[in-house]
Amino acid sequence: MPTAIRGYVFDAYGTLFDVHSVAEAGREVTSDPATLSATWRQKQLEYTWLRSLMGRYEDFWVVTEGALRFALRRLGLDAREAHVRRLMEAYLTLASFPEVRLALERLAPRPRAILSNGSPRMLEAAVASSGLGQHLAHVLSVDAVRTYKPSPAVYALGPKALGIPPVELLFVSSNAWDVAGAKAFGYQVAWCNRTNAPPEELGLAPDFVVTRLDQLPT
Amino acid sequence: MPTAIRGYVFDAYGTLFDVHSVAEAGREVTSDPATLSATWRQKQLEYTWLRSLMGRYEDFWVVTEGALRFALRRLGLDAREAHVRRLMEAYLTLASFPEVRLALERLAPRPRAILSNGSPRMLEAAVASSGLGQHLAHVLSVDAVRTYKPSPAVYALGPKALGIPPVELLFVSSNAWDVAGAKAFGYQVAWCNRTNAPPEELGLAPDFVVTRLDQLPT
Repeated sequence: MPTAIRGYVFDAYGTLFDVHSVAEAGREVTSDPATLSATWRQKQLEYTWLRSLMGRYEDFWVVTEGALRFALRRLGLDAREAHVRRLMEAYLTLASFPEVRLALERLAPRPRAILSNGSPRMLEAAVASSGLGQHLAHVLSVDAVRTYKPSPAVYALGPKALGIPPVELLFVSSNAWDVAGAKAFGYQVAWCNRTNAPPEELGLAPDFVVTRLDQLPT
Repeated sequence: MPTAIRGYVFDAYGTLFDVHSVAEAGREVTSDPATLSATWRQKQLEYTWLRSLMGRYEDFWVVTEGALRFALRRLGLDAREAHVRRLMEAYLTLASFPEVRLALERLAPRPRAILSNGSPRMLEAAVASSGLGQHLAHVLSVDAVRTYKPSPAVYALGPKALGIPPVELLFVSSNAWDVAGAKAFGYQVAWCNRTNAPPEELGLAPDFVVTRLDQLPT
């Protein structure tokens, strides 16, 4: 019999918050905003991993802007500084996916928290613009430990804040590698596979796979 | 005046060894081997970073095969086990880039070494098939420290083996992020930018940029 779930820890970008509006902002600088968005996102993650391994932490705002500048140069796009600013600011005004609010309500009264790569300021803005604040007991940023997912030090923030051991928490992310990191740390994990992606080959299978957050186990 | 260079530490794949033959082996399973090769390579690097951060080291052969299986599934390619084996074995029979032998000779008598993510067996095979062994004082694998680049523990292997402080060594890689990692550790670094790639936005500029290894400073 599986261990009962006493609380939930959610990844933010792509899991609770829809970053589609970030991609949309790319229309100002390219006729192919999907490629800009994908290149930007990939490089954003790479820089979190590389900086963590090098011991050269900078917060997610700095990393995200560096990744954007790389992506623009890589794709040969000529963006003015005002475009860069608008693309960055799209991260501060995100909407949640349609099912998120009801999905979070359904899991009450067990505590629900965010654990994200985002900087405290970025997360505060996204929680405010999506109106999810009242459903969240904690909004935890990796900034507290100055390294990024999938470092164990990051995943440790969830159990510490909630006062619940990881094996009694369900960690939820749309990123398969993030789910693997949380599983390696000791959480129960659910992969919200919104895009029908193939599983990662990291030797760590998720406990649950869902396609929307209102399918999570209670 | 820059510090004199007393020895050279080279990345292997893409820097000394041409992985083109790995891409060629993909023709058996797809009409677009370039996309398979790029997807495979990207995932191979991701898995080294993710496993290092999770503290779940597996050697580069295991990581490379996992990345290949992911790439095949992601691209919807139906590969038989024999194809997987032939794609993997292409890593064991690599050629060096055309200028490498003379470039290494030109740097003598200062010691030259390899420092690579590759497993000892993979590196041994590549050195043998390329015939570069007589030009190399050391062939160093991350396997000795069970983590991957850009962890400082990896870059420390070069100075330790050569008995020369990093600031008097030139670290050479075609991967801009690897160059950044070596620079963060304390080497002098040269980026061999064979593909006219844009620089990374990691706040660490290379000391030298060349397009071929016979342009390295002596």
